[in-house]
Amino acid sequence: MTEHFADRWFVAAEEKGAPVCVGIDPVLDRLPLSLGDDPIEAIDAYCRTVLEAVAEHVPAVKPQLACFERYGSAGYAIYERVVREAHAKGLLVIADAKRGDIGTSSAHYAAGLLRDADALTINTYLGADGMQPFVDEAAARGAGLFALVRTSNPGGDALQRLPLSDGRAVADAVADIVVETGAAHAGESGYSLLGAVVGATQPQDAVSLRKRMPHQLFLVPGYGAQGGTAEDVRACFNPDGRGAVITASRSVIYAYKDRDDPDWGDAIAAAASQLNREIAEILR
Amino acid sequence: MTEHFADRWFVAAEEKGAPVCVGIDPVLDRLPLSLGDDPIEAIDAYCRTVLEAVAEHVPAVKPQLACFERYGSAGYAIYERVVREAHAKGLLVIADAKRGDIGTSSAHYAAGLLRDADALTINTYLGADGMQPFVDEAAARGAGLFALVRTSNPGGDALQRLPLSDGRAVADAVADIVVETGAAHAGESGYSLLGAVVGATQPQDAVSLRKRMPHQLFLVPGYGAQGGTAEDVRACFNPDGRGAVITASRSVIYAYKDRDDPDWGDAIAAAASQLNREIAEILR
Repeated sequence: MTEHFADRWFVAAEEKGAPVCVGIDPVLDRLPLSLGDDPIEAIDAYCRTVLEAVAEHVPAVKPQLACFERYGSAGYAIYERVVREAHAKGLLVIADAKRGDIGTSSAHYAAGLLRDADALTINTYLGADGMQPFVDEAAARGAGLFALVRTSNPGGDALQRLPLSDGRAVADAVADIVVETGAAHAGESGYSLLGAVVGATQPQDAVSLRKRMPHQLFLVPGYGAQGGTAEDVRACFNPDGRGAVITASRSVIYAYKDRDDPDWGDAIAAAASQLNREIAEILR
Repeated sequence: MTEHFADRWFVAAEEKGAPVCVGIDPVLDRLPLSLGDDPIEAIDAYCRTVLEAVAEHVPAVKPQLACFERYGSAGYAIYERVVREAHAKGLLVIADAKRGDIGTSSAHYAAGLLRDADALTINTYLGADGMQPFVDEAAARGAGLFALVRTSNPGGDALQRLPLSDGRAVADAVADIVVETGAAHAGESGYSLLGAVVGATQPQDAVSLRKRMPHQLFLVPGYGAQGGTAEDVRACFNPDGRGAVITASRSVIYAYKDRDDPDWGDAIAAAASQLNREIAEILR
């Protein structure tokens, strides 16, 4: 799998008809009651059904490592199974781990997480030399990265929107580091293997960040439950309608009526299908 | 263990005679050859000896999660054993995980990682609401946190030293968020459960950050192999000689002559003892 991640992404998105992704964030007290209350068994069974339900509607899934790591090594083992099963169903896997460290430690995270997943979210606060080992590993493996630039949570503003003395915002400066660090790694599509996380709840910033990072794929969380609308996410695409991965998590994986709903798998499938249609619609 | 982390830290540091910590960053190709080349077995055996060697000389150890997570769930299980054995030897454990996410995901990381470790490093790029769940969990458990403010890697400068329009640097703004977020959580010592990571390679910044965050414990990596000297770290202490946790990793755990050295455990013990003496000396 040495083909460039961005090129693989565009093929996969075209096949499914929309550039969308379902976040897999399993939380025990929201799972169907029929799965029981042992967290390891319940989450394992739940994730199998989620993958089954979404596979025909979306090109990629995004497991949230925190939900698995909460249960230590046993939870981590479920995450590893999710990756294997997602691949068996032809899905791309974006590991939402937001890792970042000094260079030597980033290299260990990259070696571990990119061995399994197709792409990985990374943190940018340590600067370019904290990101470079991820870029090197991703380049060798045909994997992708999404660096945190503008996050979807309200508190992100307090740091990311601060104005610098040169007129840029902090997030702009991070964007510029991302552009520079990823410049040598474009695929045939023109997009770099180093993309950016830009929250769907920040449409005003998305417009300027899209111009600032024309060759970055945007991973756009926050659609659905976090309040981002289809209108909000449009700003994350380039004028040709390419360049963004729209992610919904809770609005899809908890789409069932209540925890007693016997048809919970069907409800998840219907929500994934709806996500696909909604995003395809705004790109028409 | 609901006693405040900072209070526990000061008792432990006094017992061992110096406020020091050994970073446990096991990398297969630097381990003694006698441990074999199966990564899981070699790292497991190596960590046992490291804990044995350093336990009488330092109050705390800091396992680097990246080195364990590199090997997936099997590596994560070794990390869990390291925590248990460190506790059995009376050591405090600072999990160097640098986690950070939007609030709901941070809560999962906090629940998982603070169940085992006494303290945790966290990332600050998502702002206060990404940190708050860590603070809540730490407060409930008597655990501590160290938020990334100024890192020890060269590339940290490109973002963390950027000047804001109000005259502060980006790292100063992060420091102010840390102070505010941790303000309600001081122990009897006066220090907050929310401390800060300030690299030993940044002495010029340490002086101003120390004034900016008088009630934050500083976790100071970079001493030894990364180039930080005893002089450099002095700036991380308050005028009364308290308030910093000086960490050395590679200079201690790889102190043996070469990978054939049969006395590698003794060499690590000697290096931990020397770390203790050096830091105690500059605080005299």
